[in-house]
Amino acid sequence: MNILIKNILAVLPGADAAGDFEVKQSDVYVEGNRITGIGKAPEGFQAEKTIDGTDRLLTPGLINAHTHSYMSFMRNVADDLSFMDWLFGKVDPIEQKMTDRDAYWGANLAILEMMKCGTTCFNDMQMNIMQTTQAVKESGMRAVISRGLVGSGTDEAGQTRLKQAYEERDAFRDCDRLTFRLGPHAPYTCDEAFLRVIAEEAAKEHMGIHMHLSESKTEIENCAKDYGCTPIELAERAGLFEFPFIAAHCVQIDQKDIEILSRHHVSVVSCPASNMKLGNGFAPVPEMVDAGINVCIGTDGAASNNTLNLIHEMSLMTLIHKGTHASPQCISAQQALHFATDNGAKALSLEKEIGSIEVGKKADLAIFSLKRPSMWPVNNPVAALSYSANGSEAETVIIDGQITMENGEMKTMDEEKILFETRKIMERIQESL
Amino acid sequence: MNILIKNILAVLPGADAAGDFEVKQSDVYVEGNRITGIGKAPEGFQAEKTIDGTDRLLTPGLINAHTHSYMSFMRNVADDLSFMDWLFGKVDPIEQKMTDRDAYWGANLAILEMMKCGTTCFNDMQMNIMQTTQAVKESGMRAVISRGLVGSGTDEAGQTRLKQAYEERDAFRDCDRLTFRLGPHAPYTCDEAFLRVIAEEAAKEHMGIHMHLSESKTEIENCAKDYGCTPIELAERAGLFEFPFIAAHCVQIDQKDIEILSRHHVSVVSCPASNMKLGNGFAPVPEMVDAGINVCIGTDGAASNNTLNLIHEMSLMTLIHKGTHASPQCISAQQALHFATDNGAKALSLEKEIGSIEVGKKADLAIFSLKRPSMWPVNNPVAALSYSANGSEAETVIIDGQITMENGEMKTMDEEKILFETRKIMERIQESL
Repeated sequence: MNILIKNILAVLPGADAAGDFEVKQSDVYVEGNRITGIGKAPEGFQAEKTIDGTDRLLTPGLINAHTHSYMSFMRNVADDLSFMDWLFGKVDPIEQKMTDRDAYWGANLAILEMMKCGTTCFNDMQMNIMQTTQAVKESGMRAVISRGLVGSGTDEAGQTRLKQAYEERDAFRDCDRLTFRLGPHAPYTCDEAFLRVIAEEAAKEHMGIHMHLSESKTEIENCAKDYGCTPIELAERAGLFEFPFIAAHCVQIDQKDIEILSRHHVSVVSCPASNMKLGNGFAPVPEMVDAGINVCIGTDGAASNNTLNLIHEMSLMTLIHKGTHASPQCISAQQALHFATDNGAKALSLEKEIGSIEVGKKADLAIFSLKRPSMWPVNNPVAALSYSANGSEAETVIIDGQITMENGEMKTMDEEKILFETRKIMERIQESL
Repeated sequence: MNILIKNILAVLPGADAAGDFEVKQSDVYVEGNRITGIGKAPEGFQAEKTIDGTDRLLTPGLINAHTHSYMSFMRNVADDLSFMDWLFGKVDPIEQKMTDRDAYWGANLAILEMMKCGTTCFNDMQMNIMQTTQAVKESGMRAVISRGLVGSGTDEAGQTRLKQAYEERDAFRDCDRLTFRLGPHAPYTCDEAFLRVIAEEAAKEHMGIHMHLSESKTEIENCAKDYGCTPIELAERAGLFEFPFIAAHCVQIDQKDIEILSRHHVSVVSCPASNMKLGNGFAPVPEMVDAGINVCIGTDGAASNNTLNLIHEMSLMTLIHKGTHASPQCISAQQALHFATDNGAKALSLEKEIGSIEVGKKADLAIFSLKRPSMWPVNNPVAALSYSANGSEAETVIIDGQITMENGEMKTMDEEKILFETRKIMERIQESL
């Protein structure tokens, strides 16, 4: 469909693409699934749909670079608990009762929540193949999927899961909003021999990798005991950093780790809410940025956050490091918006297709209302996104040229049905516990 | 008006009022400006208005215990700057151009934003008498007002402002949603002799006090240089803690300060977003709670936050201290809700009238929708308020028995007019700079 977004404040790349965005009143044109004009209409353009941009902000669709979407029905089941009570007392027993179909509805709920806050792409690690992928395909969302891998050496568990990862990838070759990565879960669930197997697979299959690294102090201590090194050093020596690599968390890292990550062009997904909520602390984001690391933002799953709202994470990103570094200039609103857009795209190896508003890129776009008391008056819209917005300002979302939400109304998802099914799931599970 | 809120999940005081809330499906009855029944209708009750509570949460109206409402049109004018650039480069020049009428519209915008997130009462320090108060009176909001006082000894500046404070208080005696405190601005704008004058005035006029204390390192250093003590010690020795006292910020305090605050039953308003944003750090909230101090939450003004959303502050409260203390059990969602409700009421000496849902208390109530993807399924509504909500879930707000917002629609304020006027103000000021 040809879409004209008329007279909108558009967040465009600045002269230095990594520097400040240029916010400019513009018309933006979409044809098929691509942006085909900014300011100037493409030849012969006829709008089938015109969107009024008055008092609205157009941003690249936000990219949630680390989550576990199936978990969303577990939100608020386990809070203010120690990690062990959280995992073994609450989350594990629920996961034991969870079916593949539950994972499908959980992913739907997550996608619904993400779209409602302006997210157009997410990077997922999942435990139930074909479920999140199916929900992504049907919903119009864009995603990068990793089937969570755990194993030792060439044991059956690991091999089975690898096989499943390929089955899932092959089953969805027809949906170009989906790409796939290998997802070794963590250094404490994959041994070094299995990590080496995954490195071989990545080389053979030309796939990137998505892994949890250096999330908690316990992980660091155990890795030192088991391997005499840090999780970052372990991943490096297993050969995993030879491939496009997304490291989720990287909270408990030192300067040597930062140098390794930087040298190998590893992208780091910081998940501030989850890291604080589980008591893991604050990732050294300013230090990683200084070292030239590509930093992006993730919400983590709803069992440890408990919301998949990237605007909330942007706010945390800009605030907490100012607090820990005693500097109001640390991590600006401009940087946070890079983290949530073009840096995310780069982390997912999708930077040629999405992550910025440029002619020729896929039309993954979010429109935020500025005419809200909390966003008003419009003094600095990029600052407003991080410091004033709460996510509810997202009105219209376009993914791959398709309007998936319009003025808050879902066009590609059945909201009532998703709420109905997920409530039923939790009622069933709670009764059986 | 008689209001029946039917079949709603109500957040009621638990058996131990300071402990966990009891969340209970209930009918709640309002007659005139008071809650007159919970569960059971008062005799002869006939509802003039019935509100459907299905899939909704009823909380005590939230209390924003420290803000400067007039500043709201300055939101996002000055971010990611050093404190000096923020104050002298941006905020001061705008304040120089600001008229009393601007302050009135700024306060209106702030009240509008606060109500939209479920806030029913705020504690304000203002610089333009009769303006915020007039906006409060007209809007149906509840507030405690302090005219900001600065001065040395018995100099004219201080005396004039004290006189203005009394004039304002006396002019609004007819509005029982307004109460007044004396507002010595800070130890760096009021000298010790003036603080002693204020203590005498507080005794004479039977007024509580609202003051900024121990916000930044610079303040601590200057106080040590000028007085050889901490700001908390200075306030104590000036006799200010003999009166109901609200101390805003208390970021840079030590164990001795905490003991003084605790001994004198000083209430502390923590403003996490503002404290981080200006690079001042994290207030030792868990330590204050352990010392028995009454802690509550404030947003501070929109020039240093940049939103007056108490749900956002509750989220920050529960997350950041878990991060700094490496403990997922530090500052629970239950505690954060106390901070934002009954603790706030106690800080403002209004605990007999507001702050909890109890028969006989004033009907200051907020209704939040739970039927949102981000709040769904309803596993733990109190956790959802801090960890999942973003403030946009507030649907209906009742203050002093009056419905001020119903299903998101303002009943007592002209939203379009307020947005129109505040935009005009910023345009005028920006042009003149």
